[in-house]
Amino acid sequence: MAQKPSIPKGTRDFLPTEMVKRNYIFDTIKDVFRLYGFQPIETPAMENLSTLLGKYGEEGDKLLFKILNSGDFASKVSDNVYNEKDSVKLTSQISEKGLRYDLTVPFARFVVQYRNEISFPFRRYQIQPVWRADRPQKGRYREFYQCDVDVIGSNSLLNEMELVQIIDDVFGRLKINAVVKINNRKILAGIAEIIGENERITDITVAIDKLEKIGIDNVNSELSEKGVSGEAILKLQPILAIEGNSEEKITQLENILAASETGKKGLEEIKTLFAYLKVCKLKTEVELDLTLARGLNYYTGAIFEVKAKDVAIGSICGGGRYDDLTGIFGLPDVSGVGVSFGAERIFDVLTQLNLFPQESLETTKVLFLNFGEKEEIYCLPVLSELRKNNVNAEIFLENAKMKKQMAYANDKKIPFVVMAGENEMNEGKFTLKNMEDGSQQLLTAGELINILSK
Amino acid sequence: MAQKPSIPKGTRDFLPTEMVKRNYIFDTIKDVFRLYGFQPIETPAMENLSTLLGKYGEEGDKLLFKILNSGDFASKVSDNVYNEKDSVKLTSQISEKGLRYDLTVPFARFVVQYRNEISFPFRRYQIQPVWRADRPQKGRYREFYQCDVDVIGSNSLLNEMELVQIIDDVFGRLKINAVVKINNRKILAGIAEIIGENERITDITVAIDKLEKIGIDNVNSELSEKGVSGEAILKLQPILAIEGNSEEKITQLENILAASETGKKGLEEIKTLFAYLKVCKLKTEVELDLTLARGLNYYTGAIFEVKAKDVAIGSICGGGRYDDLTGIFGLPDVSGVGVSFGAERIFDVLTQLNLFPQESLETTKVLFLNFGEKEEIYCLPVLSELRKNNVNAEIFLENAKMKKQMAYANDKKIPFVVMAGENEMNEGKFTLKNMEDGSQQLLTAGELINILSK
Repeated sequence: MAQKPSIPKGTRDFLPTEMVKRNYIFDTIKDVFRLYGFQPIETPAMENLSTLLGKYGEEGDKLLFKILNSGDFASKVSDNVYNEKDSVKLTSQISEKGLRYDLTVPFARFVVQYRNEISFPFRRYQIQPVWRADRPQKGRYREFYQCDVDVIGSNSLLNEMELVQIIDDVFGRLKINAVVKINNRKILAGIAEIIGENERITDITVAIDKLEKIGIDNVNSELSEKGVSGEAILKLQPILAIEGNSEEKITQLENILAASETGKKGLEEIKTLFAYLKVCKLKTEVELDLTLARGLNYYTGAIFEVKAKDVAIGSICGGGRYDDLTGIFGLPDVSGVGVSFGAERIFDVLTQLNLFPQESLETTKVLFLNFGEKEEIYCLPVLSELRKNNVNAEIFLENAKMKKQMAYANDKKIPFVVMAGENEMNEGKFTLKNMEDGSQQLLTAGELINILSK
Repeated sequence: MAQKPSIPKGTRDFLPTEMVKRNYIFDTIKDVFRLYGFQPIETPAMENLSTLLGKYGEEGDKLLFKILNSGDFASKVSDNVYNEKDSVKLTSQISEKGLRYDLTVPFARFVVQYRNEISFPFRRYQIQPVWRADRPQKGRYREFYQCDVDVIGSNSLLNEMELVQIIDDVFGRLKINAVVKINNRKILAGIAEIIGENERITDITVAIDKLEKIGIDNVNSELSEKGVSGEAILKLQPILAIEGNSEEKITQLENILAASETGKKGLEEIKTLFAYLKVCKLKTEVELDLTLARGLNYYTGAIFEVKAKDVAIGSICGGGRYDDLTGIFGLPDVSGVGVSFGAERIFDVLTQLNLFPQESLETTKVLFLNFGEKEEIYCLPVLSELRKNNVNAEIFLENAKMKKQMAYANDKKIPFVVMAGENEMNEGKFTLKNMEDGSQQLLTAGELINILSK
């Protein structure tokens, strides 16, 4: 009967020490979201496959975890299909539900479904796991949390400003030095327009995105391979060569994009956003980054990406504005903007930089050692009183050897231990031991509660 | 392209108003768990089917949501099996993973898997959703949260005491009048022994459990139908007739069970527990209830059940001691004890009794109305300052009509609104409006921050 226990590959268990750290991240993020008036929603783990399929491209469809229909599913498959023994066709007849792949599509579905019950502009955050049947590898899991914050139903650039403020607040509280890179899809579209390759915006921006990694020569040859004309590539060079701080870049772009209405609109948006951000007095560096070209399939305005300055780990937060998220579910022309915090990578950054706080509200502050039945009864009222004062407190559960009890306190990193044996009982007192420096104090119940409640 | 959006039956979306209430329950429960030194863990939504199958009976196996293997799963099914077109056999070859059905089996798997990394006695809590392919009906969902708290690796009755304290604390904080019913499986086994029907403990206790619902005559005839001898049923009558408060019941049982070692052990445990509980000064009523016979397949000592006194809704919390949870995964003889809080029912109780707090930390406290661009810039620094003081604050995102902005504040139940138009700007002040009583104050930025930070 005994089995060697294990979990599916790419999934994880979280032990208390990891949970405390993960909750520190999630709680910090949630606290900031709430400060800005965002409210939580949750959607079910399972969505109808009709909701999910076709939203993430062909590859995404394959990476969806599909749930087998309950009951005698096989009998409901037509003989024709069954006899083909084709997995894709079979799936469509034996599975109707899948696990959510991200929080964006379920959110779009949610907004359309409850559009008469929510107040627009709708400011929501959502922190839930998602599942992808990806090949597991270092840092890539089949189950992981996403932390999304979005505003739906408002075109105001105040939204973009507040998202950057939120990023500033979150990483400020986590003590991560971050840099926020901002771009605007309309600027990229303007560039494509100016060089006469309107239809090539994706190719061009994907190439621009690689500028840092592969260098200008390789970018040029990639563009050429993709069929971008030599003339266009030539026109692109001054843009690739733009330098300076954000304001200087904007000034140069204003000249280059003067003939593109879209490009000018993008620049105007960026300028307004930077003007707003000046008022906010951010601690985080913010810069215009033309090489930033994430999510061009859906972003229509601002594009955001955040990197940690002290750890090379890729993006720790990203997002942008999308003008038609809900169209696929029958509600067109609703603009949204949002970002997603990468909790797994933030965890890695905090670990590498040793930035997790030593003290945690989630662990036990004091352990009462157990010297036997009489002593237990002596300690119980004080234990209750401590808990009433919101002090996390435990009593060791059996009269075990001292060594075992102290080892438990050490393993659980409990900072204080209370000893009450015969001597203490005779005096009506308690000995409080500081586990860090080893010092001891003989105290009354009142004094003990006072000290530990601080 | 447009689809009418919906979610799988038996699943739910949670809007912000519901989330705030649900979080109030979960946060209250978590706060109490932590006070007693319990720490959180999480396990993956998906477990290997080998972990889950056979743990919940034949019916349970059917109710597991199974995940279709990725890739070309059909090609891996042997032709023999495929040609049978039998759903059960097919499942075993096209599905290796399932969604967790409860938190208990994954926890047992967890304890065995990490037994060298955790400190025993291991005090953990776990609050996560579980999935069951049950027929959905009122109050029964296919996805719902469980809140479990358990101690593994300690035989001490202090554990039972602390679980009752936790129950007392949780329902005290939630302001629910509860009654904790306690029984002990050893007492039930003693009864079966005394009446000479050792093998019939389940039949007898299931019947006892029905005493309140179907009456003594029906209980007797059910026992008879199940093959319990007339003599045994006769011997059972004084036990069914036991009356009085918990102490009186215990005294009567001591006589009746004097000849059963197991029964006496059970009574001793109950007496010790009641003695401990006396020291704890609980607010919640606690009573010995011999008709309580939940979970007899696994509970070996104490059995707990909690009911709300003011709402007829069944059990809102329950649990007990189990002596061999981890045996199925190869780690025998580890005792555990725990309870599970029924968050969905607690939600219903709080709703019916109107006990959800009016104020919530999760909603916005103040909305700045938007009178235009200049006014925005005037408000932004104060808005930032409020957030630095941990006040949840928003600015309406566009210069929309007053009516629309006020409707937004009302919909979101925001208690304060700040207005800063030309007059206020000229005076360097802000008008604060209390949305409840309609009163207004003209304030400096400092005064405003002071009042709202309280």
